[in-house]
Amino acid sequence: MTADQRAEALAAAARGGDRRALARLLSEVEDRTAAGEAAVRRLYGEAGAAHLVGVTGAPGAGKSTLVAALVGEARKSGRSVAVLAVDPSSPITGGAILGDRVRMQQHASDPDVFIRSMASRGHGGGLAGATIAAASVLAACGFELIFIETVGTGQSEVEVASIADTTVVVQAPEMGDEVQAIKAGLLEVADLVVVTKGDRPGAERAAAQLRGMLTVGAQHDRALGDRPRPKRPDVLLASGAIGTGVPEILAALDRRAAARGEHRDRSPAAALARAEAQVAGLLGERIARRLRDPQHDARRLETLAAVAAHELDPYTAADELLALLAAGAKG
Amino acid sequence: MTADQRAEALAAAARGGDRRALARLLSEVEDRTAAGEAAVRRLYGEAGAAHLVGVTGAPGAGKSTLVAALVGEARKSGRSVAVLAVDPSSPITGGAILGDRVRMQQHASDPDVFIRSMASRGHGGGLAGATIAAASVLAACGFELIFIETVGTGQSEVEVASIADTTVVVQAPEMGDEVQAIKAGLLEVADLVVVTKGDRPGAERAAAQLRGMLTVGAQHDRALGDRPRPKRPDVLLASGAIGTGVPEILAALDRRAAARGEHRDRSPAAALARAEAQVAGLLGERIARRLRDPQHDARRLETLAAVAAHELDPYTAADELLALLAAGAKG
Repeated sequence: MTADQRAEALAAAARGGDRRALARLLSEVEDRTAAGEAAVRRLYGEAGAAHLVGVTGAPGAGKSTLVAALVGEARKSGRSVAVLAVDPSSPITGGAILGDRVRMQQHASDPDVFIRSMASRGHGGGLAGATIAAASVLAACGFELIFIETVGTGQSEVEVASIADTTVVVQAPEMGDEVQAIKAGLLEVADLVVVTKGDRPGAERAAAQLRGMLTVGAQHDRALGDRPRPKRPDVLLASGAIGTGVPEILAALDRRAAARGEHRDRSPAAALARAEAQVAGLLGERIARRLRDPQHDARRLETLAAVAAHELDPYTAADELLALLAAGAKG
Repeated sequence: MTADQRAEALAAAARGGDRRALARLLSEVEDRTAAGEAAVRRLYGEAGAAHLVGVTGAPGAGKSTLVAALVGEARKSGRSVAVLAVDPSSPITGGAILGDRVRMQQHASDPDVFIRSMASRGHGGGLAGATIAAASVLAACGFELIFIETVGTGQSEVEVASIADTTVVVQAPEMGDEVQAIKAGLLEVADLVVVTKGDRPGAERAAAQLRGMLTVGAQHDRALGDRPRPKRPDVLLASGAIGTGVPEILAALDRRAAARGEHRDRSPAAALARAEAQVAGLLGERIARRLRDPQHDARRLETLAAVAAHELDPYTAADELLALLAAGAKG
C-alpha cells in the first residue's frame, strides 16, 4: 500500500467515525510520515468550519477542570468536541501535567468527545505546525469545537495558544509574584480570561485586579501606537468543579465564533496567523530534510563541525547551506 | 558609517573593555541588525574558549540566588563572568521573572561581571540563535564563564538550556505534583542538578528522591536502547542565600569544563548541537526574510491567504514557496 493509499483509507475511515483510524491518522500526522502529510493534503479543504479554542495558563490554574466542564456543557447541545492537550512534560513520566485524565474520565465513553495528547518534546519549532495539522484532521472529521490546551509558561506554548481562533487564558485567584509576571505576558494573547476556583474567597478581587491590569495594558498599547486590539478581553469567573460560570463561558466562546463567521471574508487575522505559523514551520522542516539528503548530508555535517570548532561563523554557514540547496534545485 | 564599519568600531571598543559598547553591540545582535551580524562574523573565531553554563528550573526554584552566589564564588578566583537572563515575561511588565536584579546588585559595580537580560517574546524559533550569538560576543570579549539563565517550563527555554556546554537544573525541595512532572522533562537535559534551599528540612530527602528518579530514568534509557548518557547527572545541595554548597557546585562545573577541554577534538557534542540549533534558526530567518523581498512578498501573502481560506493545503504552500525561492536564486 502506498502512503497515499494508506492516507486515503485512514482518512475515509476516520471521517466515517472510526475513532481508532482517527487516532492512528493523528499519530501519522504527529510523526510527519508521508501518509500523514497526504491525509492532511486530502482533508485540509474541508477543515474550515471548526472553532479552535486555545486554553492556556500556568500549571495548577485549573485548565483541565475548566476544559472538562466546557466539554460537558457543549455536549448538552449535542455538539461534537475534541481536545488536543499539548504536553511539554517528559515522555518518561508519561505526561502528567495536562489533560488530566481523571477529570476527563467522565467523557471517555462518549463517542462524540475525542481527547488526544500531543508531546511537545523533540519537535523544535514544529509544534505549532503539528498542532494545527492535527486540528485540521479533527475539523475535517466533523468536530465542531476543538480545544487546544497548553501550559502557558513557555514561548512555544504561547505560540500554540495564539494560533487558535479564540484564546482563553486561565488564572487561579491565588498566585505568587513570579507567576503574575508570566501571566502578564499571556494576557497579551487572551481573547477571554477565566478566573478559576471562583467559589474561593479572593476570586472576585483577582478578577477585578486583572480587569485593572488589562485597562493599563490597553492604555499602554495606545500610548505606544501598537496595533490596536479589537477590544479588551472579558474577564469571567468560573468554578469548573461545581460548574458555576461554565455556561456563560461557552456562550462567550459561541458569540466569538458567530462574529468570526460574519467577518470571515473581511479580517481572518487568526486564520492568516495560523497559516503563517504552519507554513513557516513546514519550510524549516523541509529545508532541514533536504540538507539531510545523501547528496548534501556530508557537506552539512562538515559545515556544522566548522561552526562548532569556531572556524566558520554561523551566518556564513547558513548562507553556504542555502546556496547549496539552490544549486541542488537548479541541477 | 557602513554596517561593517560600525560593527568593527563596536567590536573593538567592546573587546577593549568598554561595557557600554558591549551593551550596544548585544542590542544590535538581539535586533538582528546588519552591524550585529557583521560583528558576530568578526568575533566568532575568537569565541571558543568560554564555558557556557545553562541554568534552568521552574519559577521560584532559586535560580537567580544560585547564579548570584556562583558569580561571587567565581570572582574570588579572579575570573570574569557574564550572565544572560533569557526572560519569557512581557515587555509591558518589564520582565520581573529572571535575573532578579536585587540579588545581582552586589555585582553591579564589578567591571568583571556583566549581566544582560534577553527578551524571548516575538523571536519565534530564533531565541536559541540569538542567545548563542550573544554568548559568542561575550566569549570573544574575554568572559570565561557565561551563565545562561532561563525559566525551564517551556520548549524554547529547555532548548536554550540544552545548547550550553553544561546544563544545571535547579530544583527547590518543596514543589507540587504538577511541577514535579515538568521537572522530569528537564532532568533529561541536566548535567548537574542542584537542590536549592538546602538548609530547609526536606532538602536532603528531595535530593535522595531526585537521585532515585535519575536512576530509574537511566534504566529506562537503557531498556529502550536510547542513545546512552555519558553518565548520570550529579545531584548537589545548595543554599544560595548563605553560600553552603556553592564552592562545590563551581568545582563540579570546573571539572566539566576541564574534561571538555581534554576531549574537545573527540566529541564536541554540545558544540555541534549548538552549531546546529544556531544555523537552523538562521536558515529559517533567512528564508522568511527572502520571502518578504518585494519580488516575492505579494505571492507569499497570496499563498498564505489561500491556506487561511482552506483553498490550498499548507504542504503544497510550503513547496510552492520553496520553488519560488529556488527560481529566484536561479535568475
